[in-house]
Amino acid sequence: MSYTSVRSRQLDATFAALADPTRRAILARLASGGATVNDLAKPFKMSQPAISKHLKVLENAGLISKGLDKQRRPRRIEAAPLKVANEWIERYRQFWEVRYDNLDSLLEEMLIETKVKATRKEKKK
Amino acid sequence: MSYTSVRSRQLDATFAALADPTRRAILARLASGGATVNDLAKPFKMSQPAISKHLKVLENAGLISKGLDKQRRPRRIEAAPLKVANEWIERYRQFWEVRYDNLDSLLEEMLIETKVKATRKEKKK
Repeated sequence: MSYTSVRSRQLDATFAALADPTRRAILARLASGGATVNDLAKPFKMSQPAISKHLKVLENAGLISKGLDKQRRPRRIEAAPLKVANEWIERYRQFWEVRYDNLDSLLEEMLIETKVKATRKEKKK
Repeated sequence: MSYTSVRSRQLDATFAALADPTRRAILARLASGGATVNDLAKPFKMSQPAISKHLKVLENAGLISKGLDKQRRPRRIEAAPLKVANEWIERYRQFWEVRYDNLDSLLEEMLIETKVKATRKEKKK
């Protein structure tokens, strides 16, 4: 498989894993430190099998890994796939920044206009 | 619906839309300018209905919009959802940067070690 297709499959798996609020919340929880399946199941009011299913998706995407402790198997976050996803999205940064640059100039124009009007009113008095 | 859940649904839709190589390729194509369904179908060797299905997913996620020309309806990229997705991923930047910082220090240590060894060898001569 070529480098491009490996990277493309990685992106498929990463974005699919991130397209779910529970899985995003699990990552947010793991960002504050490793946790066992039990630890993770608690705040979500979900059964262990339901959480395990989400963990499997995150694990297959390489977004989490299992710790060495065979009893507890704490999960921890793995950021490499997020870095790749970030690089992909960053290519489009120009599109949202141009838009916000335009908004900035518009706001500036409106501000100048308001000031001009205020000055005129002041002079009329 | 709360602001958080609207934002969460937006992220679900954005990440799900990005989890497909054809849809990412369509966005890449639209980044270089607007294009009609016909224009988009050509390079992908896909039928128009197949492309239209992908366009619908991108459109529902707000990642593309239709131009005003009623005959051609050219699609163009809409970057706002990408900005939101970028902001979500950026929260985890520390995780991949720490890792690469560690790698940097490791490489530096190895370089110093190599230099020390080389100096020792030089002295022995």
